[in-house]
Formats: sequence, structure tokens, C-alpha cells
Amino acid sequence: MGFKTDIEIAREANKKPIQEIGAKLGIPTEHLLPYGHDKAKVSADFIKSLDGKDDGKLILVTAINPTPAGEGKTTTTVGLGDGLNRIGKKAAICIREASLGPNFGMKGGAAGGGYAQVVPMEDMNLHFTGDFHAITSAHNLLAAMIDNHIYWGNELEIDERRVTWRRVLDMNDRALRDTVTSLGGVANGFPRQTGFDITVASEVMAILCLAKDLKDLETRLGDMIVAYRRDRSPVYCRDLKADGAMTVLLKDAMQPNLVQTLENNPAFVHGGPFANIAHGCNSVAATTTALKLADYVVTEAGFGADLGAEKFLNIKCRKAGLSPSAVVVVATVRAMKMNGGVARADLNEENVEAVQAGCPNLGRHIENVKSFGVPVVVAINHFVSDTDAEVEAVREYVASMGAEAILCQHWAKGSEGTVELATRVAEIADADVANFAPLYPDKMRLFDKIDTIAKRIYRADEVLADKKIRDQLRDWEEAGYGNLPICMAKTQYSFSTDPNLRGAPVGHSVPIREVRLSAGAGFVVVICGQIMTMPGLPRRPASETIRLSDDGLTEGLF
Amino acid sequence: MGFKTDIEIAREANKKPIQEIGAKLGIPTEHLLPYGHDKAKVSADFIKSLDGKDDGKLILVTAINPTPAGEGKTTTTVGLGDGLNRIGKKAAICIREASLGPNFGMKGGAAGGGYAQVVPMEDMNLHFTGDFHAITSAHNLLAAMIDNHIYWGNELEIDERRVTWRRVLDMNDRALRDTVTSLGGVANGFPRQTGFDITVASEVMAILCLAKDLKDLETRLGDMIVAYRRDRSPVYCRDLKADGAMTVLLKDAMQPNLVQTLENNPAFVHGGPFANIAHGCNSVAATTTALKLADYVVTEAGFGADLGAEKFLNIKCRKAGLSPSAVVVVATVRAMKMNGGVARADLNEENVEAVQAGCPNLGRHIENVKSFGVPVVVAINHFVSDTDAEVEAVREYVASMGAEAILCQHWAKGSEGTVELATRVAEIADADVANFAPLYPDKMRLFDKIDTIAKRIYRADEVLADKKIRDQLRDWEEAGYGNLPICMAKTQYSFSTDPNLRGAPVGHSVPIREVRLSAGAGFVVVICGQIMTMPGLPRRPASETIRLSDDGLTEGLF
Repeated sequence: MGFKTDIEIAREANKKPIQEIGAKLGIPTEHLLPYGHDKAKVSADFIKSLDGKDDGKLILVTAINPTPAGEGKTTTTVGLGDGLNRIGKKAAICIREASLGPNFGMKGGAAGGGYAQVVPMEDMNLHFTGDFHAITSAHNLLAAMIDNHIYWGNELEIDERRVTWRRVLDMNDRALRDTVTSLGGVANGFPRQTGFDITVASEVMAILCLAKDLKDLETRLGDMIVAYRRDRSPVYCRDLKADGAMTVLLKDAMQPNLVQTLENNPAFVHGGPFANIAHGCNSVAATTTALKLADYVVTEAGFGADLGAEKFLNIKCRKAGLSPSAVVVVATVRAMKMNGGVARADLNEENVEAVQAGCPNLGRHIENVKSFGVPVVVAINHFVSDTDAEVEAVREYVASMGAEAILCQHWAKGSEGTVELATRVAEIADADVANFAPLYPDKMRLFDKIDTIAKRIYRADEVLADKKIRDQLRDWEEAGYGNLPICMAKTQYSFSTDPNLRGAPVGHSVPIREVRLSAGAGFVVVICGQIMTMPGLPRRPASETIRLSDDGLTEGLF
Repeated sequence: MGFKTDIEIAREANKKPIQEIGAKLGIPTEHLLPYGHDKAKVSADFIKSLDGKDDGKLILVTAINPTPAGEGKTTTTVGLGDGLNRIGKKAAICIREASLGPNFGMKGGAAGGGYAQVVPMEDMNLHFTGDFHAITSAHNLLAAMIDNHIYWGNELEIDERRVTWRRVLDMNDRALRDTVTSLGGVANGFPRQTGFDITVASEVMAILCLAKDLKDLETRLGDMIVAYRRDRSPVYCRDLKADGAMTVLLKDAMQPNLVQTLENNPAFVHGGPFANIAHGCNSVAATTTALKLADYVVTEAGFGADLGAEKFLNIKCRKAGLSPSAVVVVATVRAMKMNGGVARADLNEENVEAVQAGCPNLGRHIENVKSFGVPVVVAINHFVSDTDAEVEAVREYVASMGAEAILCQHWAKGSEGTVELATRVAEIADADVANFAPLYPDKMRLFDKIDTIAKRIYRADEVLADKKIRDQLRDWEEAGYGNLPICMAKTQYSFSTDPNLRGAPVGHSVPIREVRLSAGAGFVVVICGQIMTMPGLPRRPASETIRLSDDGLTEGLF
């Protein structure tokens, strides 16, 4: 008897009409804008009508540093949401949308896995409700308006060499990373070197995910810096008068998408900013809407807790006034073993010592999250190869850290496998013991904020930044951007900036390569190491084998 | 008392749920995939279930050569559809989708005008159901796969200088017309000069609009020529193995969109290929579906009858096995006056002589359409400034051409203004007098086909083509493409290739500048004059004034 694949399970889902899912949250049919029978947007008018309602409890699911063994963060988010519903709680989940481009390189993925998935999986890996296409359009409209402005006389005196606004496509296309545009003579404008990023790297994506409403969206779009003059003064999106039209292009995309889990529980899937040069969380609009409609909202953040949870707490929660009641850190026995030095090929063999050796990575994440004043529960995402002794080793380690680890079997059993986790998480959330505060105050100097993250979260000894970078940070402080939070872009595989340094390293340095101001999104991006904002396709891209079967099913995408 | 604008009228529309509109055509709710409450796609499964059903009557609405006075072709298409419903017929209309990009340059437009419109107007001018975004994605996936193939070793031996496949965006962006890509070193590939077209100019768009079903779509996509080798042999999309994934990206877009007229009658709005380098008609999928569901289907073709009707009849009808029962040629008194030499500023003054002087343009279109064996009715689209004497002059002229002209007031009165036209068109269609045949047989030599169109439709004396072009046509014949129809790309403002030559010119020449093979769409494009496939934005683009009002309405778009 073999296991079913995620797509096989997803296709067997007994989906309910999206109106029924909306009804569970009290959303009237007329305020649910359907996209097919199993997807819908929640209308902006309805969201406005929720003003003043009490919020439910917010639960973040985060994880250890990712390993090739896989941790199942989204799977656990879904499993916990289903588990809460199973024990009689009104719960919703909030996760990110998938980017289209990468699906044609490596295989696309499910939202979740096994019996803890969100459906419809195929649509979510393709165009879904068109949000990313709207972002692509809005972003590229601004780009066209910049070149058009220069073409017609450049009243704003934009320095053509200092246009920072690039173009985007939701496609893995390395040929577009570095381009020259406006060739071909007078009618096509002034040639200049520029390029394309993938859509999820657009500042428009980050803004859509942080904006409270359409007004806030428009303001933030207007705030974006798109170029500089020869005197280095910034040119804003607002100066180009592009913010209004961009808002119009994004008005539908701003409305959160509602879908369902395999167990017919409500799932908001909305927004998907990069987790390195942006904050990597689903939209504030979806999260705040879900909090008005459900008693418990389970959400997740990108990468491990050092990046994902840190940004969720320091950027998203701070900006949106959110306060999490509990954090779940997902770990697996296999990932502990890899952190303990076991090779991938040997993961199926019992190795309690390696589990114990790898646990300090988990331990540090527990400590870090606790330092934000939020209670932590560890979810051990069960794999069939895990032995009781290995699971027990994790449990004991977590107990020694003053936390609790709960074995979960949602991948194999759905909500039946998360009853214990859900019960415990609900108890903790209901106890109102969280006392959340961001890691650093708004008023701290920008460099000191970076230093705080590096030392308190990464446990580095020092931050290395040359004079140019320190001067740049000071200039932004003088220009009024000193109150912004920091968005760190570093490798997700280690607490350090070296992806090969597993476990819980100490004594390392954090070298800053570059800083960027996302004035509309409202954070300063600090880049440590190489960050790729336009992926390429592999030698044999998945797109070569993706096709429609004779009975209309998508093959090769998963 | 002022007139209401199109958008004011559209916003006052008493729209019915799209399920009710679908029910008028017998489409069950489960086969109507909603996009919001007022748009839906008709499921591929349902369309398949219609196989073998009898077809309704097909009526084409075309026009004289466009003038700045405006003819109201779409308005008349909508008005006639509503008129047929008013007199108790089961009628549907089929028109094209709007391109997003141009709306940010000049103001976007309604589908129709006055009291003969299709709604929801705002959505139709923005993302609608995402079809064009899907085409953009599919087109650019192929582009990425070509450069990726070259990057990884170029097994197919593509000549990098002869990659004909460009990229597309649904945006007016002159800076992208002519670009160099893959700069920046080894990791980004091999630099080469290329560029972007607007999405509606993509061969993928033409294919989507000519494909019978998803299988046919995939085959045609595979047939596209994307590059040549050094030995000039073609490289096909199929060689890159991109056709399957492109089909997956287009599977939803292939399903026709259903919306409604202001009078709640069904309207299919699907596809929108360029009317110069492509055939300029809505999709075959929408037209053939509408014909299975309605007794009368009113559709239109781009530009005047010399381009639009010619391509509708010689390309779309030939390829899809369609046979129109009647053709309506739209004319206005004002356009006749402009053809008769009156300046735009003087159009409001009665000038019967000028009307008479301008009528031969209309007369030639009547003759041309009749030469396809299809009965013709002229619809005089009434303007408030028209005098009875002027209208009578058109009527008399048309009668002298052996046809009938009917005054229509749908712009001001909706279907009440087209009762006479609808009654007469239905009579003609029911009389089954049409004996449609394309203008030239498949087997004719390619150059002779061009010559036939130029002499029989444009009434030119000769076609001018240098040896290189004639050789190219001969090469394609030898390669097996000799049976394809011709897709003429010339100015829409004149029968000739000189846009200033109004009326019914004779004795002119048709110089061919370039020929292109659209092997997937299945036609040979013959370019006479400059054809712009990537528009630019004007000095003051509409996007500068487009914004959302405080009550959520889109301002400045219309």
C-alpha cells in the first residue's frame, strides 16, 4: 500500500461551495465575490462593516531553520487550523499565495501536504484570483510612466542613471535580470540599463500586504521612491502621478481570498511578498479580517523563526497593531538529525544522539520567540520514519527549555492528528499570558536596530558595515525614515550569514552588503550576502513536462 | 438637460446576477464559473456537451472605414442584439475584450455606448477575468524557455540572432520596443537584441481566438515558429516543449466570458487580437458556443469592412466553418459627410451634398460584402445632429446599390431604437438566402491571394512586392504553408494604404513592406506601411488622472 501524493489527496477533496465556507464566518453571499465555485474574495465593503468588532486570538506558526528534510510549516498551519475547528473552536487560517514563475522551474507545491492542505491546489499554483497579475500591471504601469515622463521632457529632472524602479514579471527569466531598454532611436526614448525582478519581489507586493485599506495603499504607493535627481533628491511615485491608477489596478487584489482546507474550514490565502527583501507574511488585510470573523486565526511566516517570526513580529505586528497570543515552532525529528550532522541519505535510521545534537537550533528559536513576550509551543511534525525514542529526545529537550513539545500527525490523519496541539494552543491563547513587545523601539537608530537583531536573534558578535552604508543609514534618518523597522535579507539556512553553519552558531559576524529603502512598504532592507530577485529556470524546467491530460487534469505541475 | 455619459448610464444599470443571464441561454449554474456576481466563464465541459446541437444564425456587424466622427459598430452590435431580444428572438452578442494597456494612455472605453452597452464596464476595462494576463504569462513562459534553452547549451542550435519570439506586456511602454537582454555576465545568458509587444499583438492571442478547443489550442501553440537556425530551418514552440505548459496556463482563458447588456441580454466578451497583424475578431470558442445556445448571434469585426469583414469572412469563418446569414454595415451621416470632405468642426451643419459625395465609401463596402454571397443591411446609427434630408440621402444611395438602409436610435433609446433593424435582419437571416463563400480558395498561391484582396476589396491596380518578399512567399509554399489565408495589415482609414485617401479610391498600388508567418494562428501576415505593435503613452497619460473616489468608484478611466 503506497501513500497518496498531495495532488491525489487534493483532487479527492470533497469541496463545499465557497458560499458555505464563507457562511461559517458569517460572510453574506453578496459580500463574497466568487472566482469559480471554490474561491472568493471578501468585499471591501463587508470588511469596512467589521470595524469595531472584537478580534480573535492570533497564533503564529513558525519553524526552525529550514533543512532539505522539510519541516511542514504550512502543513502544520493547516493542521492546527483544522484541529481547532475539530475541537469546536471557530478558527480560520491565513497563508500566502504562491508565485507562478517558480512553478515552471522546479515543481510547484501544495499549500500544506498530506491530509492538511488548502484547496483548490491547481488554481492556487496558477493564476488563482489574479492578484499577482494585478501587482505586475501596477508595477509596470509605474515603470512605463517613468520612462514616458523622461521621454516627454523630464520635467521632474530624473537622473536617468538613477532610476531605481525596475520592471517585474511573475516568471523565472534570467535573461531579464539585466537589460538595456529604449533602444531603436528617438521614438523609443533614452536608452538606459535596467532590469526585471520577479513579481513577488516588487515593493508593490510588500505594500499590498501591509496596507490597512485602499486609502492606506494609495498613500504608501505614492511614498515609494522610484528615482533620484542629479542632486540625489528622491523622486516619488506620487510625483509621477501614478499612485491613483495603480490603486485602481489593485482594488480587487486588495480584497482577501477565501478558500478551504480539505476539512472544509476557512482559509485566507492572500499576498506573497519575498521573505528576504520583504517581510514574507500574508496580507494584513487578510489577517485583520480573519481576526474579526474567527475566534482563532492561525497564520505563518516565511523561512525559519530567525527571519520569518522576527519580521512577522517586528514589522507586520508592529505596523498593523497585531498582538499574537501564542507561537508554534514547527520542528521535525529529521531536521533535528540534519542539524545534528546526519546526511540526508541516512535520515531513516534511528539516531537519538544526532537528534539531541541538533536540538540547540530549535532551542535558540524558542528562546528568541519568548524574548518577544509570547508563549511558545513546539509542534513535532511526525514522519513515518521517526522512532519513539527520537520523538522523546525532542520532547525532553524542549521541556528543558521551559516549553512543551507536542507530537502532531496531521499529515497522515488531518485534524485527528492535531487535537492535542489545538487543545493546548487554545488553552494558552485563552489564558492571555502573552505580553508582546517588538524587539526594538521605533525610535532606535537604524544601525542599532540592525545590531539588535544580529546580536539578540542571530547571536552574532558584530555587524560589519562600511562607511558608505553607515552614511546611507544616517542620511535616511535625517530624511525622516529613522523610525522604520529593519527587514533583514540573509540566508534562511542558518542563524548566521553562512548557509552551511547549522545548529546554533555563536561568535560570527553579520556583514552588510547593501541597504535599500522601501519607503512605501515602510522598512529598510538590509542585505547580507547575495539575494536573487529574478530566478532562472533549471536545465530541465518543470514546464517541459507540464501539460493537460485528456480528461483536463494538469500533469507535471506537482 | 444634458446627456448622460456612458459611464453614468453603465453605473445605473440594473444588472441581474450572471446566473440569470446564463439561464436565458440554458446554461446550468454549475457550468457557469462566476467571477464576481456579474461575470462568468462557461465551462469547457458544458461546451463539449453541446456537440451536435443545431447552430443559430450568425450576423456580422461591420462598418465603413472609420473616421474621427465615430460609427458606433460595437454600439450597433449591442443595439441589434437587444433589438432581437425585444422582438422575442433568443439572441446573444459576441464581442472582443478590451486591452488594459491603452486605457492608461488615452481614456478607456465602454463596450458600446449610450443605452446600448455591455456591463460591467469598469471590470471590462481593467483585469476582467484575467484572460489577457494568462496570455501574457503563456507568451513570456515560452520566451523564458527559449533563452533558458540557449543558456543550458542550445541543443536545438537556435541562431541567437534569429529568435523571432519576443516578449509581451499588456502595457503601453515604448521603452520596451527595442531592448538588449541577458546582460550582466555568464549567469544571465547570452546578450541579444529583442523587445516587447503589447499582449494583444501576441500570436498566442490570435491562436486563443481561432482554436476550437484545448487540444486544438495546444497543437497550434506547438506549431508556432519561434526562431531559426543558421541554416534557416525553423525552430518550433513544440521543440522547446513549451506547448503543454502554455496550454495549462491558458485553460481557463479558453472558456468564453459571459456578461450582459444594459437590457440584461447575454453577451459573450472573449479574446481581442490586433486587427492588423491578426484577424481582429472575438474568439471562435465564444462564437460557436453562442451559436449553440442562441437562435441569433450578433458579432462584430475590427475596423472597417475592408479589413474587419474581409478577415472575419476569409480567416475566421473559413477556419471555423462558420457561415454568416447576414451582414450589417454601420454608417453614420457624419462619417458620410467627412468622407464627402467636410471638416470635423462643421459636422453639425446640414450638408446633403457632402453626404451624397461621401456615400461611395459605403457603397463599395456593400458591394464587397455582397461579393462573399451574404445579404447586406445598412444600419444608419443616428446622431442628434442628423437631419431628415441627410438620412434620406443615405437611404436613397443605399437603395440604388440594391440594399436597404435602416435608421437606428439605440444609442438614445436602447432596443426601442433597433426594432426595425432587428425585424429586418431576422427576416433576412430566416430566409436563408446567404450563399457564403470565401473570396479565394485555400489552394491559390499566396501572392495571388494578396492580389485578389487588393484588387477585389481595395480596388487597387497592383500589388508591389520586391523579389525578397516574393521569394519568401514561395519558400513558405514549399514548406507547406501555401494553403494559409492572408492577414492584411494596412491602415484602417482608407481602402488604400494611404490613410488620407478617403471615399472610394481607385488606381492605387498596395506596396508590401514585410511578410510574416503566423504558423500557429494559421495565416500569413502581409504588412503594408508601418504597424506599431507596442504603443507608447501620450504626454499626459490618462493614468495621471485615474483614481479611486472616496466611495470606491473609478474616476478618470472613461
